[in-house]
Amino acid sequence: MADDLVRRDAVQLNLAGAQTILAAAEAKAESMDLKVNIAVVDAGGHLVAFYRMDGARPASIYTAMSKAVTAALKLGDTGPVVRGGAPPDARLNVAIENAAAMSGGTFTTLNGGTALVVDGQVIAGIGVGGGTGSQDEEIGRAGRDALLQALQGQ
Amino acid sequence: MADDLVRRDAVQLNLAGAQTILAAAEAKAESMDLKVNIAVVDAGGHLVAFYRMDGARPASIYTAMSKAVTAALKLGDTGPVVRGGAPPDARLNVAIENAAAMSGGTFTTLNGGTALVVDGQVIAGIGVGGGTGSQDEEIGRAGRDALLQALQGQ
Amino acid sequence: MADDLVRRDAVQLNLAGAQTILAAAEAKAESMDLKVNIAVVDAGGHLVAFYRMDGARPASIYTAMSKAVTAALKLGDTGPVVRGGAPPDARLNVAIENAAAMSGGTFTTLNGGTALVVDGQVIAGIGVGGGTGSQDEEIGRAGRDALLQALQGQ
Amino acid sequence: MADDLVRRDAVQLNLAGAQTILAAAEAKAESMDLKVNIAVVDAGGHLVAFYRMDGARPASIYTAMSKAVTAALKLGDTGPVVRGGAPPDARLNVAIENAAAMSGGTFTTLNGGTALVVDGQVIAGIGVGGGTGSQDEEIGRAGRDALLQALQGQ
Repeated sequence: MADDLVRRDAVQLNLAGAQTILAAAEAKAESMDLKVNIAVVDAGGHLVAFYRMDGARPASIYTAMSKAVTAALKLGDTGPVVRGGAPPDARLNVAIENAAAMSGGTFTTLNGGTALVVDGQVIAGIGVGGGTGSQDEEIGRAGRDALLQALQGQ
Repeated sequence: MADDLVRRDAVQLNLAGAQTILAAAEAKAESMDLKVNIAVVDAGGHLVAFYRMDGARPASIYTAMSKAVTAALKLGDTGPVVRGGAPPDARLNVAIENAAAMSGGTFTTLNGGTALVVDGQVIAGIGVGGGTGSQDEEIGRAGRDALLQALQGQ
Repeated sequence: MADDLVRRDAVQLNLAGAQTILAAAEAKAESMDLKVNIAVVDAGGHLVAFYRMDGARPASIYTAMSKAVTAALKLGDTGPVVRGGAPPDARLNVAIENAAAMSGGTFTTLNGGTALVVDGQVIAGIGVGGGTGSQDEEIGRAGRDALLQALQGQ
Repeated sequence: MADDLVRRDAVQLNLAGAQTILAAAEAKAESMDLKVNIAVVDAGGHLVAFYRMDGARPASIYTAMSKAVTAALKLGDTGPVVRGGAPPDARLNVAIENAAAMSGGTFTTLNGGTALVVDGQVIAGIGVGGGTGSQDEEIGRAGRDALLQALQGQ
């Protein structure tokens, strides 16, 4: 009911779930011969667990985190906003970045942030930094899929 | 009179007025099956009242606020700057966004910020975030119109 | 079980619940002849609803929000940290403030942030700004108590 | 030799080492019935790995990180500066905190940051947040000792 004061069936990610995601994403990156940073945040955008693989760029710590937070708080995977099949509109995407700066600069339109959806709820964001946008995306999705499969097995 | 030291008939939005705007905007969004964030700021760009509808993106809190502040402080609805009927100039608008970033992300060229004009004075900005730019605009205008109608009835 | 990947009985605050809190806090402030800002954030520290009462200080928008976020994210009411009954240690509290600045400056040791606990979970933070610390606290608690009572009636 | 252009025997922490630290610190916290955030940063103060235990305060993410960075970059455990056996000087330590605020909240005088020293080199900082200062310290040292023992076994 729209008038409910609270919702009582919300799903939350536990540390064990985040570790499952990190292990699978790390294995995927290794199979691609890449060294990346992997961040998992909860639905509120707060860090649950993080791994930086040996040799991965420290600078990508921050893009990984920003991608994870963005996926969690925009309720969807990250990337430039595209409207109606047209190529991404530079102005629109700069405008989104800048408006988001009100939050303290946590948002990004970079690719590589993946939303984890369980029971129709976005319960976490997974952010990967160190490869190209599409490589980062592939690694994050491997982490996401590992958790979804593990949940089906329970 | 140009020499008046102060103006004594300025109009200011009260909390009850902001609540009228929020309720009408929320009802409009529900009728469109959308979940949005709605911010109402005063003429100084400071928050008066805010609602995040259940299921709306937390990331759009910040775009909604940025749109509201921009409408209040530029004394007009938000959107890309258009010169002489030509399509918006990406460079010009990125430049405006970049300059605006000096404000800390306060200003935006996104659509969806509506100025509330009463007796020829901009007394508030209404910002909506969560739909497309034109959906957000439609929702914000429903809020504005509800207040204007309520004022006529008084 | 500690090994659970996710938790499925988490409680979330809805907008209707936040409105219940705001209305009760506003009524309490009126009864005390005070004009305050009242912010309600979810468990992730993201704004759900906000009211600034007519005549309340715009500067207190930010203290109200900071108090609400702090209560949500530290899982308890705000205020200076006290250890062992001794008077608050200035160094300890400045240190906590500064360490927290890593988050972008959202945390505070001011009084007036109240954690809303339902089924043993902190599901929201309520922040009030405009009175003294103890007045703000009293107003926030009136909001919290109104929601807890409404939940008991359901 | 002082004239060497580079040093060739520097020790660096790997991700596997950071995971050893996190696992031992987490086990120690569980044995104390505490829920904490644990951060491990490298000698440059950049995050290598992080765990937030279920139910730990999100606000302590930032204090844990700040403690870890401080231990790594001041080359020693964190805590208030003490001069000549006297009790900590509040003014001195507030001054240090305030100067440190220039770093954006990176540095802290809070207890609970532990420097990891291998072959006479500080190779990492371990920061724990969620308990009292001395509890956090005890948990961080358990993580440090686990790594040192594992290295001796090699």
